[in-house]
Formats: sequence, structure tokens, C-alpha cells
Amino acid sequence: MNKQLILNERPKGMPDSNTWKLQESPIPDIKEGELLIQNHYISLDPAMRGWINDSKSYIEPVQLGDVMRAGAIGKVIQSKNSHFKVGQTVTGWSGVQQYTVSNGEGIYSVDDSQLPMQKFLGILGMPGMTAYFGILEVGKIREGDIVVVSGAAGAVGSVVGQIAKIKGCYVVGIAGGKKKCDYIVNELGFDTAIDYKSQNIFEAIKEACPKGLDVYFDNVGGEILEAALSRLKKHARIVICGAISQYNTIDDMKGPRNYMSLLVNRATMQGMVVMDYAEKYPMAMRDMAGWIIQGKLKSNESVYDGIENFQETFKRLFTGEKLGKLLLKVIEK
Amino acid sequence: MNKQLILNERPKGMPDSNTWKLQESPIPDIKEGELLIQNHYISLDPAMRGWINDSKSYIEPVQLGDVMRAGAIGKVIQSKNSHFKVGQTVTGWSGVQQYTVSNGEGIYSVDDSQLPMQKFLGILGMPGMTAYFGILEVGKIREGDIVVVSGAAGAVGSVVGQIAKIKGCYVVGIAGGKKKCDYIVNELGFDTAIDYKSQNIFEAIKEACPKGLDVYFDNVGGEILEAALSRLKKHARIVICGAISQYNTIDDMKGPRNYMSLLVNRATMQGMVVMDYAEKYPMAMRDMAGWIIQGKLKSNESVYDGIENFQETFKRLFTGEKLGKLLLKVIEK
Repeated sequence: MNKQLILNERPKGMPDSNTWKLQESPIPDIKEGELLIQNHYISLDPAMRGWINDSKSYIEPVQLGDVMRAGAIGKVIQSKNSHFKVGQTVTGWSGVQQYTVSNGEGIYSVDDSQLPMQKFLGILGMPGMTAYFGILEVGKIREGDIVVVSGAAGAVGSVVGQIAKIKGCYVVGIAGGKKKCDYIVNELGFDTAIDYKSQNIFEAIKEACPKGLDVYFDNVGGEILEAALSRLKKHARIVICGAISQYNTIDDMKGPRNYMSLLVNRATMQGMVVMDYAEKYPMAMRDMAGWIIQGKLKSNESVYDGIENFQETFKRLFTGEKLGKLLLKVIEK
Repeated sequence: MNKQLILNERPKGMPDSNTWKLQESPIPDIKEGELLIQNHYISLDPAMRGWINDSKSYIEPVQLGDVMRAGAIGKVIQSKNSHFKVGQTVTGWSGVQQYTVSNGEGIYSVDDSQLPMQKFLGILGMPGMTAYFGILEVGKIREGDIVVVSGAAGAVGSVVGQIAKIKGCYVVGIAGGKKKCDYIVNELGFDTAIDYKSQNIFEAIKEACPKGLDVYFDNVGGEILEAALSRLKKHARIVICGAISQYNTIDDMKGPRNYMSLLVNRATMQGMVVMDYAEKYPMAMRDMAGWIIQGKLKSNESVYDGIENFQETFKRLFTGEKLGKLLLKVIEK
């Protein structure tokens, strides 16, 4: 049987036990041209919160009754498609389910002989690609830049900061709690960390960047975005990658009240969506794999077990109770 | 005697009769290297509201007791500076006063033999330069782009829209009241106008740009910025030139609640300050003068009389009671 997570109801605010429901259905037979994937790990990302709103975005909303959209990694266990062989490791939009039937579209095989499978959903997957193109192509970092990143212990932020260090920047990470702040400084080599839970964010950014900042990579929005806007250097760049502090708000989102700092400082605020860079993923993956092998780029995965624990695990994205990339193991022994 | 307007008190909200005071002092004698300018017209610009706040910006605040900063145009009436001759028309930061003593720094002579002097404070002055560099270098317009501009009957917005028309764009102007809307369509050749005072701005932008917009040039901020953000096409550019709806607010400014449209649409919001383009002014003025002569670029000045009417005239920037460039004539007969 195939356990699948179905979108049951669009949530107001934080998803709850009615948002999704688990269903079991027989594993379908595959037709000519198709393959059957057994999923091992599901990727949990803040962006998924947006996909279950019924509103126009960069991607179609998940429809009620459909399997919840998610990136996943697993193994081909049956194939009637000449491009895929049984035993291959593959990744793609397989959804929150244990088995996926696919015609191969949007499914990519990966070579996981050197690295654990999980890395291909994190540092070598969407979050890693987001970090790479966001900080290099949108942030346009140069050696010596002062770079500030929020969500700094997360799957994207942790990689953003490390790439900026590799490129010779001074890197300030913003994260919640001492454990995460210690991790990004001591383990990942950030220059300094700000604990937004215990520090005044406006004062802390001022202290960390007395001369202002060149690039702010935003994963969180809200007050932290305003604090960063208050410290822009001339011609600064703000990369809008996410706004996790606002995703579960029922009322209107908050806009940055001091956005006119963009004018004062001739600065740029630019949004990005990682899919736009798909053609360049292979180049980025080569760079990233090289840095990983050289020990310059580290990553952490927080892995939880059991498709039935999806909702509880998903919440950890917003409560901050995880370090690095959040994954759900859905394969059963 | 020289009538001068002195900054007396920093206003909260809209400036009032205590904000400035008029003083008379003798016209000083000039020293070696100096020149004496008799100012004819003073430029009134929304940005002046920001200069009297005591806060960090792109330019130093005007200090209490100092002559109010303003661009002006007038004639050299005495000169002990070899670069300037008596009778020359000159423009620069002469301030709100009838006579200015200068060492020549930041004072430029202009050839007003073909065009009235006033044009050099408007379409060929700062507002014109702002429009030119804002729409071309920051907005990066291309033929066929859908361009929306707010404050469209104003000194900057009216030129933005006309340049966009010259470059082959479809141009939507947002202005307050039927008179202004008729003016920008019938006189200036905009494709269509939105009257934000009588129309729902969200619906009106949707109707005017059914496929979305490529460039939004913002002079006003507030709800109109949010309405524009709600209609971005992919890779749209927002030029942040001003936020006149917010300049006199006593409470916090409003930030655009839907700024995440920048992410969804991979769009850019960039601030600009015209002084950054000073080196390129001559090139821009050649272009603009050419378009004026060819009849492709029109402008209007609303001229009021008397330095003692400064405060009352200044208010018209915010109440909308003027068309095109607002000037104050300070020379007395």
C-alpha cells in the first residue's frame, strides 16, 4: 500500500490536524513510459506554506484532494521508461507519499555514491541552489562586502553565509537561540551571530555592522527586514528569498515601513525564485560539491521519521525547532 | 535688503506658520572670488519636506536658523569670480532668498536664449533629470513595456510618462482629479489615466493593465504602491523616486504590505537620487532639449508670486493644487 498525504482543507494561519489527511491506496501498476519510485526522504520547506493558499503565486496552488507537493528523493523500483533503471537514485517533485508513479518529467537521477542521499534535498538540492544563485547572482557579492543573512542556521541561510565567507565577505548571521548562534559561528565559520530572540535586532545589527551592510539576504521578513533596511550602505542589495515570519499570519502581512531607505541609499530589493536558474544547476552543483569535498561547505540535516508525523514535523519550520535542512523519512523498514 | 526664509522649527506633520520665518538683512558685499546672484524663481519640490526632518538621509538636514535649501534660478548682478559675468543666467542651490552670495561652487550658468528661465528649474532641471535617469537607467524601459507612473501630472511624473511614450511604451498615468487626468492624456499623450481620487486604485490598475505592468515609477508610496505591486509582470522594475503620500505623516510610514510580490514576480524595487547622475546631466539635457524642440516633450509650470507666500505655496505640493512644476517668483519689480 502507498501512504499519501492529501490536502484536505486550506488553513487560516498555522496548519493544523485538519489541513492534511493521510490516505492509503494500492500502489498502481505502471504503464509504458512510466517508472515507479519508492521515496526515502521528503523535503520540508517554508515555501510549502504558500503552496496551500488559494492565491496566485510563482507556482500553482496545491488543489484540495491532491497529494501535497514536495521535493523528495528515492529509488526507482520499477521502470518502463528507457531513461531510468531500477536501483537508480532519483529526485524530483514526488510529493508527500511513499511511492510515486511518474512519466519521468521533472525527475532527475543523482549520483549519491560519494554523499548521503539526504544532501541532495538540502545543500545540493533546492535550498542549496537557492543560496547559491541568491547570494551570487542577485546579491552580487564582492570580496570585502558586509553580508547579513537571516534564518542563518536554516537550510538556505547556512549555505548563503558559507558561500559569502568563501567569496571573502564579512558575514553576520541572524538566528534564534544560543545553540543556533554558536553553530553558525563555531561550526560554519560566520564572523558573528545575532540572536534575535534575546537581542534588540536594531541595536544588534548596528553593533555588528557599524559601517552598514552591503547585502542583506532575507528569509524572514517582518521586523528583521526593517532592521536591515535601517543599516544599508550606498548601493546595497537586499535579496528577498522568503518571509517566514509572515507566512502564517491571518491578518495582512507587514510591509517594511522604512523601505524609503532604498531611495536614501540608492539600494535595490529584488525577489528571486530558484526555479529560474534550473539551467545552471549543474554548474552550481559542481561548485558546491567541490567546496564540500574541500571542507569549506558544511551542512546539517534534521531528519524526522514517519509520513504520519508530517504535520508535526512541518511545524518545526516555523517554531525554529530544527537545525539546517528539515527532512522526513517516509520509507518503512 | 535681502528677504530670506529661515528654518525656525522642525514641523511634526505638515509644515505650518511656525516652520519658517521671513527675515530681512542687508545684501552683503562680495569678496574676491565671489559673485552675487539675484534669484528670480525658487523651485518647490516634495523632497524639501524631508530636508527639514532631523534625520539621516541622502543629504544633510537644513539646520535651524539657516536659510531654507532650494534650487533657484536668477542672474549674476555682481561678480569678482572669473568664471561668471554680470548678466549671466545661473542656477544652483541658492536657497529661498532674493539674493545669494556664492563662491561659484555648485552654480551653473545656463543658456536661456531659446527657452524661458523657468524651464531650467523644471523639465531641464532636477525634476526633468530625475525623470530621465529614473525611467531610463533605473526603470530600464524597452519598447512595448507597460509603464505606470504616479504623480503623473507633476514635475517628475509628467516627464517620465512622455519619455516612456517617446521610447515606445504603453503609458498609464495616475493623478488626482479630472483636470490632471485630461491634461496627461490630451496634452501629454499618455495612453490612459487613472484618477485615484474617484476610482478604486486596485481595480483601476487591473483594468488599465490587464496583463500586468513592466515598470512602475513611484512618486507617492502608500496604497498606490501596493496597487502597483499587485500587478507586476515577471521581472518588473519599480523605481522608488518619492513617497509624497507619506512625507507629512506623524505616525510611522506605511510599508507596502504585499512586497512579496517582488519574489513571486522576480521583480526589483530600486531607489534613486538624481544627484548621482550629475556627470551625465549634459547628455540628458541635450536629449531633452531636442525632444522639446521637436514638440515631443511638453511641460507646465505653476508659478506663484512672492517669497512671503512660500509656506502657502509649498503646501500645494501635497494638496495637489497645481499642475506640473511648482515655482515661486521671488524677484520684486
